[in-house]
Amino acid sequence: MKIFTTSFKVRSYECDSYGHVNNAVYLNYLEFARMSALLEKGFTLDLMKKSGYLVVIRKIEIEYKSPLFQGDEVTIKTFTSESRNTSGTFTQQVYQGNEERLAAEAKVTWVFTNLKGQPIPIPEKIREAFDIK
Amino acid sequence: MKIFTTSFKVRSYECDSYGHVNNAVYLNYLEFARMSALLEKGFTLDLMKKSGYLVVIRKIEIEYKSPLFQGDEVTIKTFTSESRNTSGTFTQQVYQGNEERLAAEAKVTWVFTNLKGQPIPIPEKIREAFDIK
Amino acid sequence: MKIFTTSFKVRSYECDSYGHVNNAVYLNYLEFARMSALLEKGFTLDLMKKSGYLVVIRKIEIEYKSPLFQGDEVTIKTFTSESRNTSGTFTQQVYQGNEERLAAEAKVTWVFTNLKGQPIPIPEKIREAFDIK
Amino acid sequence: MKIFTTSFKVRSYECDSYGHVNNAVYLNYLEFARMSALLEKGFTLDLMKKSGYLVVIRKIEIEYKSPLFQGDEVTIKTFTSESRNTSGTFTQQVYQGNEERLAAEAKVTWVFTNLKGQPIPIPEKIREAFDIK
Repeated sequence: MKIFTTSFKVRSYECDSYGHVNNAVYLNYLEFARMSALLEKGFTLDLMKKSGYLVVIRKIEIEYKSPLFQGDEVTIKTFTSESRNTSGTFTQQVYQGNEERLAAEAKVTWVFTNLKGQPIPIPEKIREAFDIK
Repeated sequence: MKIFTTSFKVRSYECDSYGHVNNAVYLNYLEFARMSALLEKGFTLDLMKKSGYLVVIRKIEIEYKSPLFQGDEVTIKTFTSESRNTSGTFTQQVYQGNEERLAAEAKVTWVFTNLKGQPIPIPEKIREAFDIK
Repeated sequence: MKIFTTSFKVRSYECDSYGHVNNAVYLNYLEFARMSALLEKGFTLDLMKKSGYLVVIRKIEIEYKSPLFQGDEVTIKTFTSESRNTSGTFTQQVYQGNEERLAAEAKVTWVFTNLKGQPIPIPEKIREAFDIK
Repeated sequence: MKIFTTSFKVRSYECDSYGHVNNAVYLNYLEFARMSALLEKGFTLDLMKKSGYLVVIRKIEIEYKSPLFQGDEVTIKTFTSESRNTSGTFTQQVYQGNEERLAAEAKVTWVFTNLKGQPIPIPEKIREAFDIK
């Protein structure tokens, strides 16, 4: 199983008046990690569009386990946990520090579509890059 | 069943390079609708803190059904769909326009805690305000 | 002088760990007020693009005078304070409540360009709509 | 003159429907660079509060010179360009790539206050850390 790893630090403006990272910002983090994984394999949104397809998020389930604070090191592990013909699910684990503490865990379900928005089979190059059986 | 309704318009800066509202922004919208519901019943974060409790989000499941665009009227319906001793779940339906089209649907699970973060029974005033059996 | 007025409430997620609206969010508010002014006069980004022009922000000067808090009513007054051949400046005043207290004041300098990014004279319809001499 | 350098990549969700980084996000970047400079010298907001002072932003002037796109490497140079008894100004230069192209330039005026919000002389430790004469 191919696991993609993305690391960064929590920024001040991502924290809300509770003093910790706002719930919605975790979805920014997850998107950033997915985009980094795509980029690591040479895929950009522009390139995908030119190849005639898009990837669309259908569903996100996220469990918040412990808060993140300004300056925290964050590491996100992204891997394919399910796949079907046109769609699949990434599991994304958000760790505080060097995988010491699981701050959140998400399941993100996506579907590949053509430029008209109709579902298409997962492109072969994507299957290879993300180790999708 | 008590249903809370919150309406607003999509703002330009909430849209991403796909031209529609970014996935993470929906969680901002859901938070705004929950805060508006609390406020409608006279609850503020400050007031809850002074009363010795907090409400913490444990889990969010959101299904994206159709995109929202700049200038769209958005209406969010928020209601209690499950409840237990210390925790419960709100269903939040995000409509485009006047309940014409369901853009997204979310289940948001929360827990009440004391100021040390330990779960406590849902406060009686909250049970009444949100019609929690 | 034509003055455009936009009103809304501060949302919880716009506040940072100081407990008040984050400095960057004021620029979201200013953009929202400018877009609302354009829309009030029938202009959308799409329409402008189809007419062959864009408006680009060149400079923003903002003075923060007193903080805004969650739930505050905000009113923004937007009006043209300077204009030249291809560019001009809006003054945007951000009030807390019903023009009771000036929370911030901004000068926003913009330029009209064609779709290649070259400056063009301010379109006549824009001059009329925004009372630009 | 002490110059602080902060580098990072543009993230997908920071881009708006024009396809480039939204104007307001530059203020997030500037805040991130200032916080990184403070942290590099051992200052955190908590520490400053415990020492009895805060730093408040009074004014930001930003000129947008050329757009930033998803995936761009960004480097911000932060240095003190003016100082007075209780206040001063940082110049912050936002470069695309390795100082190849100036994307934006900002002047950020701040004031030190006590915890009641009254201006106080710039703390000596801050003067030393930021090379403020």
